[in-house]
Amino acid sequence: MSTRRPVKRPGGRTAAVTNAIRSAVEDLVTEKGRDKVSIPMVAERAGVNATTIYRRWPDAGAMINDIATYQLDPSRPLPNTGDLRADVATWATEVMLHYRKPVNAALLRAGSANAGEAQSDCLRGLLDEVTRLVEQVGDAPVTAQEVVDGVLAPVMYRIIFIPSSLTDDYAERLTDKLFS
Amino acid sequence: MSTRRPVKRPGGRTAAVTNAIRSAVEDLVTEKGRDKVSIPMVAERAGVNATTIYRRWPDAGAMINDIATYQLDPSRPLPNTGDLRADVATWATEVMLHYRKPVNAALLRAGSANAGEAQSDCLRGLLDEVTRLVEQVGDAPVTAQEVVDGVLAPVMYRIIFIPSSLTDDYAERLTDKLFS
Repeated sequence: MSTRRPVKRPGGRTAAVTNAIRSAVEDLVTEKGRDKVSIPMVAERAGVNATTIYRRWPDAGAMINDIATYQLDPSRPLPNTGDLRADVATWATEVMLHYRKPVNAALLRAGSANAGEAQSDCLRGLLDEVTRLVEQVGDAPVTAQEVVDGVLAPVMYRIIFIPSSLTDDYAERLTDKLFS
Repeated sequence: MSTRRPVKRPGGRTAAVTNAIRSAVEDLVTEKGRDKVSIPMVAERAGVNATTIYRRWPDAGAMINDIATYQLDPSRPLPNTGDLRADVATWATEVMLHYRKPVNAALLRAGSANAGEAQSDCLRGLLDEVTRLVEQVGDAPVTAQEVVDGVLAPVMYRIIFIPSSLTDDYAERLTDKLFS
């Protein structure tokens, strides 16, 4: 009698559960705001047992931090065409499209509630990227500060407060104005 | 036998209690963030009986809304010198100095956590003020939209995320850049 144990297939049951949990977290954070989301709520929405979730994460905060990666990957390559205006427009549009997604906007808002002197990693990452963009061209016509004031700040302000006013070309128009 | 009831003096005991409660609310909101402040906590800090507070407000949320008027008085007069650049600089500096106060910044952050499609009264008020500033001069060289993008958004962004980077002349410098 052979005892064949089922082979664990990547992309099989485990991946399906993870995807269901991820979707449930994203939907619930968007609908209710980060602080209102609990593990039983996610379990119900995802159609999985709460025990399955507790086996992976000790609490809702850890789960959301791990699942809803609302920050852009800090190791992704930055645009570097030699044309700073084009690079800033590309970068800022990517940032805008990322944080405009409802789940990311909801997490950004939750993060802003706890912002202040302790700068968030998310924000620090973006400021570092602005500095790198400006420094990778020689003799830049604008400072990192000016890119923050003229492009990043209005993009983030509208994402937080007036998301419906954002258009796809908003970051590009701000960049054009900054470099004009 | 005369029964003289004590005369209620304005600025007496009641005012002293109100001031103590107000200071306690402002300090605690600044220290802990809006959502963490409870009535017993305020009572202890203010040195008054919690019952005294419950007699005035049903819960901490109502108390904070009522006490910590972090919004600028919407009926205050706006600058109107005929010089739009000067008016915008004056207005934006007033907004900055107001929301830079730690308690107002803390409440603004708490408000941003609940922002989104349902625009806050605070924000709507500021957008209306920008529109009025621009409309009260004929033939304005900038649009209300441009004042929001170029001045209001960076001011609010820094108040929320990087308050330590604000300088007293920040709003004025942004205005100068917008009009240059």
